[in-house]
Amino acid sequence: MTKRRQILVIGNNESGCTPELEKLAYDVGVEVAKSESVLITGGLGGVMKAASHGAHDAGGLTVGIIPQDNPSYANEFCDIVIPSGLGLSRDFLNALSADGVIIVGGGSGTLSETCAAYMHKKPIAALKNSGGIASKFSDQYLDHRQNVKIVGVETPQEAVRYILSQITA
Amino acid sequence: MTKRRQILVIGNNESGCTPELEKLAYDVGVEVAKSESVLITGGLGGVMKAASHGAHDAGGLTVGIIPQDNPSYANEFCDIVIPSGLGLSRDFLNALSADGVIIVGGGSGTLSETCAAYMHKKPIAALKNSGGIASKFSDQYLDHRQNVKIVGVETPQEAVRYILSQITA
Amino acid sequence: MTKRRQILVIGNNESGCTPELEKLAYDVGVEVAKSESVLITGGLGGVMKAASHGAHDAGGLTVGIIPQDNPSYANEFCDIVIPSGLGLSRDFLNALSADGVIIVGGGSGTLSETCAAYMHKKPIAALKNSGGIASKFSDQYLDHRQNVKIVGVETPQEAVRYILSQITA
Amino acid sequence: MTKRRQILVIGNNESGCTPELEKLAYDVGVEVAKSESVLITGGLGGVMKAASHGAHDAGGLTVGIIPQDNPSYANEFCDIVIPSGLGLSRDFLNALSADGVIIVGGGSGTLSETCAAYMHKKPIAALKNSGGIASKFSDQYLDHRQNVKIVGVETPQEAVRYILSQITA
Repeated sequence: MTKRRQILVIGNNESGCTPELEKLAYDVGVEVAKSESVLITGGLGGVMKAASHGAHDAGGLTVGIIPQDNPSYANEFCDIVIPSGLGLSRDFLNALSADGVIIVGGGSGTLSETCAAYMHKKPIAALKNSGGIASKFSDQYLDHRQNVKIVGVETPQEAVRYILSQITA
Repeated sequence: MTKRRQILVIGNNESGCTPELEKLAYDVGVEVAKSESVLITGGLGGVMKAASHGAHDAGGLTVGIIPQDNPSYANEFCDIVIPSGLGLSRDFLNALSADGVIIVGGGSGTLSETCAAYMHKKPIAALKNSGGIASKFSDQYLDHRQNVKIVGVETPQEAVRYILSQITA
Repeated sequence: MTKRRQILVIGNNESGCTPELEKLAYDVGVEVAKSESVLITGGLGGVMKAASHGAHDAGGLTVGIIPQDNPSYANEFCDIVIPSGLGLSRDFLNALSADGVIIVGGGSGTLSETCAAYMHKKPIAALKNSGGIASKFSDQYLDHRQNVKIVGVETPQEAVRYILSQITA
Repeated sequence: MTKRRQILVIGNNESGCTPELEKLAYDVGVEVAKSESVLITGGLGGVMKAASHGAHDAGGLTVGIIPQDNPSYANEFCDIVIPSGLGLSRDFLNALSADGVIIVGGGSGTLSETCAAYMHKKPIAALKNSGGIASKFSDQYLDHRQNVKIVGVETPQEAVRYILSQITA
């Protein structure tokens, strides 16, 4: 089996992002790359771009799955671009492409991706102090099914470590 | 312009449904039909089926947009079936097909549809005493963007009245 | 079972349409409505609009499944609009929503829908003198699998009669 | 700009494949890898698997975009798997992910991908002696729009050379 581990990082796009969130996302990208996992993101700005930037700087491989049908919309740190042409429903593609998911802050798009990952029982870690969706849903289940707990973590290292532990389990 | 008003009703599928929720969903379906709107649902069981049943009994027209690629999976109260073949990402199709959305209870799939509707700024009403997603998010915004408030309502009549007021506005 | 028969009509959009093709598509729409089937189209111009116009004038029910995420792009003869937000991949949605397919002329988009219908083994009739894809593939299989033959027909009446015979068979 | 060149190889799945087609597809995969392009395929059997095998053996990077929602359905030579969950409409994802397309034999699924690539004006090369869709449509346009000609080629080397010439042009 040739397939590499694939970790999805989700969070605020440019409209809701801050320098602190970008720094955190960059560090998550670095850790994903150091774990020799492929980084998957939604390929646009904010957390997606910062995480791709970090993974790229650390020598990792990055995939951006974007809503548009033209690769030129992807940020400049994506090695591979999947221009889905599916609009925002590409959130499901992102989740399905993940062996595990890490949440950094985030708004309604991030919550949509979290729902998709939860319904497909993917391991999910949330940086619990990063605000937004990550903070709001840390250490919770999304519903009565209790498919997977969204595990709150403190650091990028801890986030990647948790995801790796769940994938190999 | 020939297009009719289209109202989406979302909520628990069979796994999380109760006789009370089914009764409520049935009544929502009746009200949607009485307003001469087309009822859109995810076409499967639980709230989707009960709402379609109600709309059907009240002489309304019902559309079911299902994850599978074969119409035989739809419940028996769908006049028109869109067998999307898209899996759970059909949640976005449901939301995009709505001029307005009514939430009855609901779990992670309902939350996914709510996110999609919110991102596309559809009016959303939630039956605030129906539990699940409807109760948890009543009278809230899903994120800092404040696209649309999820307006908590008490009854099916109030839900449909609110949606109509937003569409005609 | 409440579900109505659903017939998809495909063909040139405005860019490749002629008054003759529009007349033919209009007549196909009339025949679909007279058979008490729901007309499904891609919801835009050319053959899609003319068929919807015909079905509408004959008192039928019309559904338009469009690439865009906003119903305002649909032609004015669609009773129900599914604004898929999926771009041109909505061609698969159209095919999957059909119990049978009628081809009027057509170019690459029509061929894409024909492939999707063929792969899902839907009955397909082609107006063999209408040019384009309809003429090129009449009385042929799309590949070695011989899933379904694209049956060449002479008139709108014959097209609908063939589809009905295959659905009830 | 970090994005790498992405070349899609399409053709028969296991049901219509022969040892000769597999050999040809393997060689196409080798040439794609030697050009330092990323190989994109539909991730399943037949031509998809053989091309991925070739690219893999030549040290290339391979992406498989599959219809299912679970990566375990992909062939063992995919480095990265996008389990789309979209059914056969993932044909559009494949085409949109390509900077250029190479056709090896092929049936209705291949034709569907060719339509999607043509509608989005991607450069397309067809191995003209490989039978199926590749032979049938070599040196033709799919319709009156004349978006892009499907250029017939004799060898895998020529196929990749043509695609590269179109991408850099």
